[in-house]
Amino acid sequence: MEAKLEYVLTRGVAEIIIREELYRLLESGRPLRLKMGFDPSRPDIHLGHVVGMRKLRQFQELGHQVVVIVGDWTAQIGDPSGTSQTRPMLSAEEVRDNAETYMQQFFKVVDREKTELRWQSEWFGDFRLADVIRLTSKFTVAQLMAREDFSRRNAGGKPIALTELLYPLLQAYDSVVVRADVEFGGIDQKFNCLMGRDLQQMMGQPPQQVFLMPLLVGTDGQQKMSKSLDNYIAVEEPPENMYGKIMSMPDRLMMDYFELLTDVPDLELARIRADLENQTGNPMAVKKLLAQDIVKQFHGEPAAVEAASHFEKVVQRGEAPEEMPVISVSELHQRISRDPAARREAGILGIVDVLVATDLVKSRSEAKRLIRQGAVEMNGRRVVSEMSSLDRVPAGDGTTLRVGKQRWLRIVG
Amino acid sequence: MEAKLEYVLTRGVAEIIIREELYRLLESGRPLRLKMGFDPSRPDIHLGHVVGMRKLRQFQELGHQVVVIVGDWTAQIGDPSGTSQTRPMLSAEEVRDNAETYMQQFFKVVDREKTELRWQSEWFGDFRLADVIRLTSKFTVAQLMAREDFSRRNAGGKPIALTELLYPLLQAYDSVVVRADVEFGGIDQKFNCLMGRDLQQMMGQPPQQVFLMPLLVGTDGQQKMSKSLDNYIAVEEPPENMYGKIMSMPDRLMMDYFELLTDVPDLELARIRADLENQTGNPMAVKKLLAQDIVKQFHGEPAAVEAASHFEKVVQRGEAPEEMPVISVSELHQRISRDPAARREAGILGIVDVLVATDLVKSRSEAKRLIRQGAVEMNGRRVVSEMSSLDRVPAGDGTTLRVGKQRWLRIVG
Repeated sequence: MEAKLEYVLTRGVAEIIIREELYRLLESGRPLRLKMGFDPSRPDIHLGHVVGMRKLRQFQELGHQVVVIVGDWTAQIGDPSGTSQTRPMLSAEEVRDNAETYMQQFFKVVDREKTELRWQSEWFGDFRLADVIRLTSKFTVAQLMAREDFSRRNAGGKPIALTELLYPLLQAYDSVVVRADVEFGGIDQKFNCLMGRDLQQMMGQPPQQVFLMPLLVGTDGQQKMSKSLDNYIAVEEPPENMYGKIMSMPDRLMMDYFELLTDVPDLELARIRADLENQTGNPMAVKKLLAQDIVKQFHGEPAAVEAASHFEKVVQRGEAPEEMPVISVSELHQRISRDPAARREAGILGIVDVLVATDLVKSRSEAKRLIRQGAVEMNGRRVVSEMSSLDRVPAGDGTTLRVGKQRWLRIVG
Repeated sequence: MEAKLEYVLTRGVAEIIIREELYRLLESGRPLRLKMGFDPSRPDIHLGHVVGMRKLRQFQELGHQVVVIVGDWTAQIGDPSGTSQTRPMLSAEEVRDNAETYMQQFFKVVDREKTELRWQSEWFGDFRLADVIRLTSKFTVAQLMAREDFSRRNAGGKPIALTELLYPLLQAYDSVVVRADVEFGGIDQKFNCLMGRDLQQMMGQPPQQVFLMPLLVGTDGQQKMSKSLDNYIAVEEPPENMYGKIMSMPDRLMMDYFELLTDVPDLELARIRADLENQTGNPMAVKKLLAQDIVKQFHGEPAAVEAASHFEKVVQRGEAPEEMPVISVSELHQRISRDPAARREAGILGIVDVLVATDLVKSRSEAKRLIRQGAVEMNGRRVVSEMSSLDRVPAGDGTTLRVGKQRWLRIVG
């Protein structure tokens, strides 16, 4: 148990405030209340979120209680990390739907039995001006403006809506209401979590400890994983996509992903790291190990094995996959007939029209460029002219189209 | 009428925003809604407030409507001009009592028939977090921190409670609710009044005009008149005190008081000013004119005449006033017997004990100092020793005590 505790407090941790106090709380034997917030305007969980969820799960295995806060009020203000616009209020129904979507994914990692779900609207729905005055009177403008992103924007002359200063206060108040013992968040949540500590003390509660995790870099290898940057891997992603995205990301991210997203032991990781640094290890093999581990967590062992073999076959050896999207010739004719830019020769299915109509490419110009680059194949043979067409589609397997390495389509009679 | 309008728009005005627009509104012939706020935690009206009230009265005489806002919500936050503490909420009863006290005094100057009384609690009592978010989203931190006192305190490292930034927003919202055409205030209210203009426009109303008046310097000749600085003349002050306080203030304040607190015509004021500058006028005579004018406004002509004669007799000629406080010898003995520091000689009323027991002085040491300075008289004769005593109090007029120029007391058998 001690070894497990040690692991939980050191693996994938950016900062703990205050480590000694958290240690004392854990030793007390009392089940702790572990708070984590979620923004219901962003219900899709990606691997960046999973880092924290895995940590919660580890604490649950030590007997502690997770309290998820549905931020239906802070979502209105928006996480003020750059923009200054408030968002339109989500309807109660949207929030409920999003929370349901979120929790379904959340419970792929976190233990449902040891999770309490709370809604900010339980306490903010009836929060009045007098409450706002009481809350805001406890903090100074300077205290809030000390937050790194506020001071940076302020120094740069960028507007900060007064509302944004309320955000950390509402989040802090959540900690008071749920009597959090520990708040979990990414390292970028440090300021907000510390406000919770302060407010709890002002309101006569013991201050929560703050457990901060590193931010997972997205598949672009540049920025924090996020949906808006399109560098994310969603938990709901099909096994082949998940596997493929991990395989295609820069090698230097691998060790962080291993540390933050797998249970591969530290000693083993040290060995892998050393092998890679000495160039005695094969980065591709290591990355496959990582991809298989992660896919397995969300889709199970068989799906992970299949994703690996799909990757090897289709991507590495360039073979046609077992399964691919299928479209009928008649459907194809119908779609093309609705395209005003399509060729108008009776019975002719022009290759450019087909690529556009089947969404294999985004535009006619992309289709032409890919044909020129030799990246389009029909039945295993390169298409050399944009004036090519599909004349007859044979019965049985029909005609197979491939664009680039991974976009496949079968056209049947 | 044109001359009157001209007078109203120029006499005792610090700034009008926007003068041309206000002029156009006045010309439209529609009765305008003239907003002025009041802080119900400070129900006592002094001459500093009268400056604005007189201006409202002048507008009423042109047919316009005054709207007084009882700031029962902003009073909780406190006018953030230096301090950063929020005050305890006044009880509804206290607010009602204070508003009644205030309005009684207010209507000594302003026409009750053309005044509408509104309470912030009408709209803020049910103001919720969602409303606060909507309101705060319209303004940036930088906009608010541009307010002179905020930026000064911020630069000086003095704390500004987040709540204080809400103050101008609430005041602005009042303007929206009452659909103010013009807001009146001292020049130190400029920022807050301009916020009202902005908010009205954001909420689809025509922006109010802002009518700002100079701040009246208090009787110390140094700072803005205010109760807390004890440099004020209250509207409720008895005629003699009011007269005496005006007479004792520095001469250089006279012309401002004439301009802001009397209807003495501008031409006449120019003449008085010139006489004073050329030293052909008598400052004392001019000040008496001022004192009599102001006392007359609040207490009527006979009281003003009496106050003037009291001043001349008691202060200028040092004669005993018509009336003075009276105490009996037996009451005096009783009070002294409760004073542990008093002389303990049977039947003797020591002068120091008497001065202390009758509150003519604040302490034994003040009594001794004044006696040494020759500032204490008994029946018109200077008391030379602190060991003096009142032996026998004659029947009839008794014994008269005088301390300094104006403190009188009669002791009767």
